[in-house]
Amino acid sequence: LTSSKQALFVPGFNCAAVSCGLKPQTAAYGGRSLDLALITSEKPCAAAGVFTGNQFPAAPVLYDREVLQANPEGIRAVVVNSGNANACTGAQGLADTRGMARLVEETLQLPVDSALIMSTGVIGLPLPMDRIKAGIRGAAAELQPTQNQEAVLATAQAIMTTDTQPKLSFQRAGTASLLGIAKGAAMIHPNMATMLVLLMTDAAVPASDLPDLLRRAVKGSFNAITVDGDQSTNDTALLLANGLAGSVDGEDFERALVEVCQELAQAMVRDAEGSSKFVTVQVTGAPSQGAAFQVARTIAASVLVKTAIYGGDPNWGRVLMAAGNSGVALDPACVALWFSAGDQSLQVVAGGAPLPYDEAVAAAIFGQAELRLHLDLGLGEVEASVWTSDLTHEYVTLNAHYRT
Amino acid sequence: LTSSKQALFVPGFNCAAVSCGLKPQTAAYGGRSLDLALITSEKPCAAAGVFTGNQFPAAPVLYDREVLQANPEGIRAVVVNSGNANACTGAQGLADTRGMARLVEETLQLPVDSALIMSTGVIGLPLPMDRIKAGIRGAAAELQPTQNQEAVLATAQAIMTTDTQPKLSFQRAGTASLLGIAKGAAMIHPNMATMLVLLMTDAAVPASDLPDLLRRAVKGSFNAITVDGDQSTNDTALLLANGLAGSVDGEDFERALVEVCQELAQAMVRDAEGSSKFVTVQVTGAPSQGAAFQVARTIAASVLVKTAIYGGDPNWGRVLMAAGNSGVALDPACVALWFSAGDQSLQVVAGGAPLPYDEAVAAAIFGQAELRLHLDLGLGEVEASVWTSDLTHEYVTLNAHYRT
Repeated sequence: LTSSKQALFVPGFNCAAVSCGLKPQTAAYGGRSLDLALITSEKPCAAAGVFTGNQFPAAPVLYDREVLQANPEGIRAVVVNSGNANACTGAQGLADTRGMARLVEETLQLPVDSALIMSTGVIGLPLPMDRIKAGIRGAAAELQPTQNQEAVLATAQAIMTTDTQPKLSFQRAGTASLLGIAKGAAMIHPNMATMLVLLMTDAAVPASDLPDLLRRAVKGSFNAITVDGDQSTNDTALLLANGLAGSVDGEDFERALVEVCQELAQAMVRDAEGSSKFVTVQVTGAPSQGAAFQVARTIAASVLVKTAIYGGDPNWGRVLMAAGNSGVALDPACVALWFSAGDQSLQVVAGGAPLPYDEAVAAAIFGQAELRLHLDLGLGEVEASVWTSDLTHEYVTLNAHYRT
Repeated sequence: LTSSKQALFVPGFNCAAVSCGLKPQTAAYGGRSLDLALITSEKPCAAAGVFTGNQFPAAPVLYDREVLQANPEGIRAVVVNSGNANACTGAQGLADTRGMARLVEETLQLPVDSALIMSTGVIGLPLPMDRIKAGIRGAAAELQPTQNQEAVLATAQAIMTTDTQPKLSFQRAGTASLLGIAKGAAMIHPNMATMLVLLMTDAAVPASDLPDLLRRAVKGSFNAITVDGDQSTNDTALLLANGLAGSVDGEDFERALVEVCQELAQAMVRDAEGSSKFVTVQVTGAPSQGAAFQVARTIAASVLVKTAIYGGDPNWGRVLMAAGNSGVALDPACVALWFSAGDQSLQVVAGGAPLPYDEAVAAAIFGQAELRLHLDLGLGEVEASVWTSDLTHEYVTLNAHYRT
């Protein structure tokens, strides 16, 4: 499941995954047909969410925002369906989301407004509620504690759309555990796919602290990746804390949260369809973190930078050009740029001007599947990193022709 | 040269184009080797410029800004070289630009600070000043009035890099003429190419009016196209008015200026390398022109929208998604969307939700080389249009592998 061999469980959380006919059982989904997951907590959770900034938020986004506002300390369940995003579905979509929540609450005898919903998949189609209801009832009957690693893996698989790998990450914070599952890679996936993240912990964290904790972690992870620069109608990250492990050190918990979020975010970029390279864009010497992120994101989103990386072209000019378009005031005379991969590193720009460099070393670096662009702005002490993929022929094929 | 059969000349302007060895004489440049153009005016011109917002402006951008500040009513010449952008070249680059201007002024016995410079081509390499100087001297000896249409065409060709077509546009404003020549398509062209525009008129327009006139025209033309969302280090539009035709009606002149700029801007998109379609994104019903442009530009720049258009996929969901990411506050329930080409039109979204539509009609529209996306926001009375191209396999090939 992950690089560590640790078991990935959080006491007090249960999960189940079923197939209820929302996803076609085709090779496009890796032959898997799991398409509905149910996650529950034995104790009410303090919870927070970060949602898409898109002006066309899907029904579950609108619904979850309301529930978290009304009941931020009493969350007991999350239902996630794949195969249908319930987006651009109007009043019926909102009624369907509410129906999913009510069915979970009734089936498991939970209080009203204790269930959250996430949906991902095609947009503009009404949810097939008969199948959804059968799926929720089936999942409720099969709940397993997260100590059951097969159930955890199935849950991570059920929320996938065209992901090729389930995405899980785990960290300890003192005596507490933190487990995250996620799917997607921003808007890269053909079927208008979505980034969904569910983070579960048994740490006791005050509900009032959770929103800021989650926002900070999302900023340096899910908001620090870019595949095609678009956010979907459904993007959601939820954090649930059931408190069973009691209080833990705040810094320990935040560090664990950031690590889990970064591992999941990077897994999305590594799994980006049609990508052939994993690229870290590191900006140092910035006057502020906002500036560092803005420059890094502009470089990471530049179509010209991404195609150059695909082509193995050490095109320092495009990196400077993109940095110059970020809207951040720069001093060209202070700028330095390095390309690196593994233990090879090559400085290509100093003082805003190109340095002579060894073409063979540049070719070796750009031949690697993982590489780093490091731009120093020479203006301050702050840094930020953003992760991105290259832009390939395969990407164009997948996004141009997925209906055929 | 253009759709009209009119002669494209402006009394009082002369031009010449030479080959001085800046561009490789390869098929990549259509076999042409013209690479330096000189344009002069017999009378001092009122002049204005609009320049790149990139934080790494090339030497000629820095130089022209200074000269226009110092001498906005006394411009007599413009030198344009292709093959070398003189960007990221530091103090030497600035000295070289100044050297080009001084040589023109001395050779033609013009006052100091009466010549402007534009450069385009590869970046990070010093200008080969010996060749440039020979080119300037050669061009100065071959100046022809713009009544010589071959000289005008050669001038438009000499400023091309990987453009496949010279770009010229002409309009009358009362008794005055307005001729524009341009090259490039934003940052699409492989060799870090640039958008350069030179507009010449014999209308008498006060120097103090020119900057705003040019800014407004650029806003609705060169700033209303997007190929890959990046602006280069060298982007420049210059407007020179020599006054020989006397005053003309201000509205007439502005209309002619906008039409010339729009024709040149659209020619850049049509010539965008690797593109297969010309797309107009029209946003109506906006609360302000800023909002209309912002929504239209976000749709036009969306990689997912552009790949769908390439694939012939009438993907209304991606258009709404992109609109929702523009940062403009929208009301999903008010939004309507049409796809059209030629005399076929198809409404696919009403009230933010999809309408059933005829797949055959959609396929016919998306099979055309020119098509229109029309999004009505339902929030106001203002509209804006932006022009873009699709994102193709050929684009990726050109931008990934141009060094090989």
